[in-house]
Amino acid sequence: MILCDIGNTTADILKNGKKKKIPLTEFDPEVFEGDVWYANVNCALDEKLKNLPHWQNITTLIEREKYYPTMGIDRILVCEAIEEGVIVDAGSAITVDVMSDGVYQGGFISLGLRSAQEAYSRLSSALEVSFNFEVDLDKMAKNTPDSVTVGFLAPLIHEIQRVNKPIYLTGGDAPIFARYFTDAIVDEILVFKGMQKLINKGSKC
Amino acid sequence: MILCDIGNTTADILKNGKKKKIPLTEFDPEVFEGDVWYANVNCALDEKLKNLPHWQNITTLIEREKYYPTMGIDRILVCEAIEEGVIVDAGSAITVDVMSDGVYQGGFISLGLRSAQEAYSRLSSALEVSFNFEVDLDKMAKNTPDSVTVGFLAPLIHEIQRVNKPIYLTGGDAPIFARYFTDAIVDEILVFKGMQKLINKGSKC
Repeated sequence: MILCDIGNTTADILKNGKKKKIPLTEFDPEVFEGDVWYANVNCALDEKLKNLPHWQNITTLIEREKYYPTMGIDRILVCEAIEEGVIVDAGSAITVDVMSDGVYQGGFISLGLRSAQEAYSRLSSALEVSFNFEVDLDKMAKNTPDSVTVGFLAPLIHEIQRVNKPIYLTGGDAPIFARYFTDAIVDEILVFKGMQKLINKGSKC
Repeated sequence: MILCDIGNTTADILKNGKKKKIPLTEFDPEVFEGDVWYANVNCALDEKLKNLPHWQNITTLIEREKYYPTMGIDRILVCEAIEEGVIVDAGSAITVDVMSDGVYQGGFISLGLRSAQEAYSRLSSALEVSFNFEVDLDKMAKNTPDSVTVGFLAPLIHEIQRVNKPIYLTGGDAPIFARYFTDAIVDEILVFKGMQKLINKGSKC
């Protein structure tokens, strides 16, 4: 079985335990052989996927009422992967979601690292600095790059720690966040693990 | 005596205890009568102000080595106003600075409310929402506007509370932040209080 997570620019594929990223410009769902379970946020592909008999939409297995109506499919899938913990998906935005005993507790959305840096740059050329990931987030800063880094990262990192649950990191910037959470688990295929759990549960019914 | 704080678009004047904002397009320093102490971040006005004998630059009274070299003059002035506390200047950026016993401890810089909202909007039309200032920042969110509000405000508010010192709020968005800090002091003329303290100290020498 193939798992497929389709975004706005790429499709992530999991096949035989291996993850592969395909640019949407090169992505043709018709060439895939065998059953595929997929999550898709790209409206332009909706109709095409619906008409492929061996492509099955993972949303049909989700109990939507466990979550909130406008919550993104990838956020739901990473939550489905975890029974107990705080899940940080650090991509273009950073989503933080909390699961307790398999029940969704809510979450929040921060800006992603790149979008935050861009927003600082837009404010003033004096704030057009790179984040300094070596900075001590438990100290107040005394230069501009550190002030901006501490200003963005320290509140976020401390807020995630406040939840006081096991931390799971996924998304492209997960390795950067990993340095601030000594016990966090970095898992690049959390979305797929959520899909797999839903499929396993679905087939048991 | 008149105090004047010149930014990039407006000049704030304090005269007889009253604050007045003048757009720079209408600002002519030559028409002021009597002594003026000023802080200026607008390079285009530097030369003109230097040549006015009754205009005195407040930077001449500041011990710069107490702060860091690239620190903005307004941040230094609000720090000079406070002996002990955390000073939050909530404007286009939000600066947070800590003073202990009159000594600068460092600080950090967050995005301002407007710039943060704009950055969320740029990320996705789904995140183009207004902050909900009624939200409970101690709870995880379960809808998009609350997720974005909690994502930006809860980490920042909690980080400021972590400092565990008296909180002073200034800047245009101070009234919005005041609702999250029950004991905070909102002071719209903190920059001028810092200037006045420096002048009093300077004249005693």
